[in-house]
Amino acid sequence: MKSDIEIAQASKLKPIHEIAAQVGLSAEDIEQYGKYKAKISLDVYRRLEHKPDGKLILVTAISPTPAGEGKSTTTVGLGQALGQLLENTDQNAMICLREPSLGPSFGMKGGAAGGGYSQIVPMEDINLHFTGDFHAITSAHNLLAALIDNHIHQGNALRFDVRRIAWNRVLDMNDRALRQIVVGLGGPANGVPRESGFDITVASEVMAVLCLAQDEQDLKERLKKMIIGYNADKAPITVADLGAEGAMAVLLKDAIQPNLVQTLEHTPALVHGGPFANIAHGCNSVIATKMALKLADYVVTEAGFGADLGAEKFFHIKCRQAGLSPAATVVVATIRALKMHGGIDKSALATPDAEAVREGLSNLSKHIENVQMFNVPVVVAINQFPTDSPEEIAVVTDWCKENGIPVALSEVFTKGGAGGLELAQQVLDLVNTRPGSLMFLYNQEDTIQVKIETIVREIYGGDGVQFTSKAQTMLKRIDEMGLSHLPVCMAKTQYSFSDNPNLRGRPEGFTITIRELKISAGAGFIVAITGDIMTMPGLPKVPAAMNMDLLAEGKITGLF
Amino acid sequence: MKSDIEIAQASKLKPIHEIAAQVGLSAEDIEQYGKYKAKISLDVYRRLEHKPDGKLILVTAISPTPAGEGKSTTTVGLGQALGQLLENTDQNAMICLREPSLGPSFGMKGGAAGGGYSQIVPMEDINLHFTGDFHAITSAHNLLAALIDNHIHQGNALRFDVRRIAWNRVLDMNDRALRQIVVGLGGPANGVPRESGFDITVASEVMAVLCLAQDEQDLKERLKKMIIGYNADKAPITVADLGAEGAMAVLLKDAIQPNLVQTLEHTPALVHGGPFANIAHGCNSVIATKMALKLADYVVTEAGFGADLGAEKFFHIKCRQAGLSPAATVVVATIRALKMHGGIDKSALATPDAEAVREGLSNLSKHIENVQMFNVPVVVAINQFPTDSPEEIAVVTDWCKENGIPVALSEVFTKGGAGGLELAQQVLDLVNTRPGSLMFLYNQEDTIQVKIETIVREIYGGDGVQFTSKAQTMLKRIDEMGLSHLPVCMAKTQYSFSDNPNLRGRPEGFTITIRELKISAGAGFIVAITGDIMTMPGLPKVPAAMNMDLLAEGKITGLF
Repeated sequence: MKSDIEIAQASKLKPIHEIAAQVGLSAEDIEQYGKYKAKISLDVYRRLEHKPDGKLILVTAISPTPAGEGKSTTTVGLGQALGQLLENTDQNAMICLREPSLGPSFGMKGGAAGGGYSQIVPMEDINLHFTGDFHAITSAHNLLAALIDNHIHQGNALRFDVRRIAWNRVLDMNDRALRQIVVGLGGPANGVPRESGFDITVASEVMAVLCLAQDEQDLKERLKKMIIGYNADKAPITVADLGAEGAMAVLLKDAIQPNLVQTLEHTPALVHGGPFANIAHGCNSVIATKMALKLADYVVTEAGFGADLGAEKFFHIKCRQAGLSPAATVVVATIRALKMHGGIDKSALATPDAEAVREGLSNLSKHIENVQMFNVPVVVAINQFPTDSPEEIAVVTDWCKENGIPVALSEVFTKGGAGGLELAQQVLDLVNTRPGSLMFLYNQEDTIQVKIETIVREIYGGDGVQFTSKAQTMLKRIDEMGLSHLPVCMAKTQYSFSDNPNLRGRPEGFTITIRELKISAGAGFIVAITGDIMTMPGLPKVPAAMNMDLLAEGKITGLF
Repeated sequence: MKSDIEIAQASKLKPIHEIAAQVGLSAEDIEQYGKYKAKISLDVYRRLEHKPDGKLILVTAISPTPAGEGKSTTTVGLGQALGQLLENTDQNAMICLREPSLGPSFGMKGGAAGGGYSQIVPMEDINLHFTGDFHAITSAHNLLAALIDNHIHQGNALRFDVRRIAWNRVLDMNDRALRQIVVGLGGPANGVPRESGFDITVASEVMAVLCLAQDEQDLKERLKKMIIGYNADKAPITVADLGAEGAMAVLLKDAIQPNLVQTLEHTPALVHGGPFANIAHGCNSVIATKMALKLADYVVTEAGFGADLGAEKFFHIKCRQAGLSPAATVVVATIRALKMHGGIDKSALATPDAEAVREGLSNLSKHIENVQMFNVPVVVAINQFPTDSPEEIAVVTDWCKENGIPVALSEVFTKGGAGGLELAQQVLDLVNTRPGSLMFLYNQEDTIQVKIETIVREIYGGDGVQFTSKAQTMLKRIDEMGLSHLPVCMAKTQYSFSDNPNLRGRPEGFTITIRELKISAGAGFIVAITGDIMTMPGLPKVPAAMNMDLLAEGKITGLF
């Protein structure tokens, strides 16, 4: 089989205005960025606001393992399959995905635009600068940082405590040397020396804000609320205090518009925003999802990491804030990954082992239970690999049937939409007969502590929560600041239900330690940090960058 | 009169494919970025390579003063006026300008897209992210920086001396706190601690490289030659040694294509690249200029700062490397600025003072002599202000006529192209009767020392050059490295022919001190630094950002 980039480069794309026309958009509704990318004006949403929404389908997964699950590939493949099933009907399907981060592309090999015959294209553009959204977010974030240091340098009227600035700078680059730095050296002309650092752009609160904003006005309101530091009395200083939200919004005026692209089979896809899935909520923008629900009858989207993190945050943060209610959830699993959850080492995954698959079902079943707790029905997608044996697959399908869970094999990687027709049919049957109606596991009025405990006990299956003294102090401060009504954004390892990445399957008898709490007042959540969360990745020994090249006539090699 | 942004927002733009059609380009030749911006494929140049070039007209100016000269406005206005004059002929005109830097827009008020009724539009986009070129350059530059620090962290096989890394990071932001920093703090996981800093993106050698490259292949060759540090034996380490040029070129694949926009009067304009005018050569890309010369009969372009810096570098660096020969040069002057060169303080410029204007002619006359030394004929444009008295204007026009220099009043700021018809006619007459044929003031084989001395004596009118011991050491090293054949890029104050910004007019009896020499081996020049050159600006007490806002429906206020 060809590589992802070979498949993508060999594909015949439709001009983007034809894709737009498929969902009823005129040339006036879009701004083309080259022949195959476009931004959609928010006026389109305002015009269609009265229309009933389409049905929202969330794709999530079991706890990730090094074996890979193929969540994005399944999302794209399911969208393509729905497109095939609906071809001669008056209904249509659309996909919503996150934008990939540029920096990591040059580190580890691997794109974020699906794979095989289920990709969004033009994949090189999507994985490089795309329509510049992340650059705009980087600029807005760093403008704020420059304004903060300039404010201090020019007299510090807001009395920032330079030891308590809560705003790093960002770059869309894997650059460990910038994690911890000292700025403002070299004398009075260069500002005030202080400790600081850079995060990767996807970890910026501006990214989370943009992805949760309903429109330009809401964007500005959220920007204003962001806490950028504390004064000598430890009182928070916000963007509103500095007056920077207008200039930041100016920089974000195009970035807030969702981007339209297509899949290899010409299914329309909105690819917009990409917040971190640990210190943020990890899904594409609210604006893109809401726009897609006006433009299509079925919208397939995904959430970062496994369902314990991705789906929980999708429901409790994104859906709650935006008033969305998914009709169904697809939980993606692979035989290989289930074997790892069943205790098998990565090196032994090629050997059939039905018993290990059965063991690993503990992980899948807990994720299914969790989604069902939100009153959203589940379809299981087995993302098939060539090494999967019929006995292994039967373990999963039999178990699903015994438990009344719709299940389908998915071969979208090798076959495109045609490999996902059974899955698509299962999804259609489900959402048209017994769609979900989202319920939440905690109330907004619950304290932050109660919210965290609810997630740990009910979703993770843990025995309880420990708060460090630092976290306890923050709990009190959050309460004093009147922010206890915010939802919680858990920053936990994605590899386990527990906070120990080595505990695969369905661990029991563990507690979770909350090391620290971080206020994202603009995004509108409290981040509960359970371990060391890396907000600036590093490059590996041999970065993927070393294999990349630009050949004559602008052809790229080595990118995935 | 309305503000620049009000005029720009009130203007009726043509769809960019119509502008493209004006210069013979089809929809296939361009990639649209929204409705009013497009990138032009380099294939267009390859297709038209056999066509004879149009005539190149350089717009330059007297030494800048706080009174302002209006060089960009004159460039745009002259292009518009040529468009009007040529309207019913089979000839056409085009403009080539630099892209403005995003960062400074949020510092001091003031755009870089012309002014009044002589602007390029859409001015907000051009002054904000435009087509993302500067973001791509920032990414490519910082990828290289991350790869350098990662190389050191992973074992330092190239034996970088961490005290002699010659590669900062960049941001397109005015951020003084980043000028001098310490990176790599926080323990072994975060890399190796060392001193470093950030420059503004326009100061990146990647910017200069992109602007001097002939095509993708030349871009990579230039990137490879860039010196990024020195090893323990003080031998240079280049991008080629690290192997990063391919990945950098991948990031620059779109940025290398020139951007097509239009003026308020629909004159086609290529706006592409914007290197610093001090530590780099300060003019738009070679690719844009060469492309424009294939698409139009007359191409108006500009160079940064006054003619002593901008025109000299345009001729000696850009024209020499690219094989260009300008047919004429327009030297822009204002009565106000001439009065400042004649000794008048900024506060007294509104008072008519013909004698001060006469005194100030010393500055204009020296710039004219300089351009003529390159065998390029001169037209003087007096960029008119409401406060200019007829007597003051007569001083300049009379002097020009006495000396056989074509001269014209320009009212392009208030009247658009109609205000520049006389100027345009003078230019047409000149380039069609006695066009220039570029000669150089020094030979490539001259030593760096001789090249600098030639510029100082002949262009600046100085008595000689002093080299600090640091600079002398560098002269020797450059010679040992076999780089003496490169042209010199002078980094000197733009406010005076001397290296003392307070010496206006035509100072005499001064020497120039070369403090330091910097090798830009990729760009292909040696930077001779005469004073403190600021490569990362700061924000003022009240940054322009504070007045900016994004209103409902995406309208911007406060940007210029």
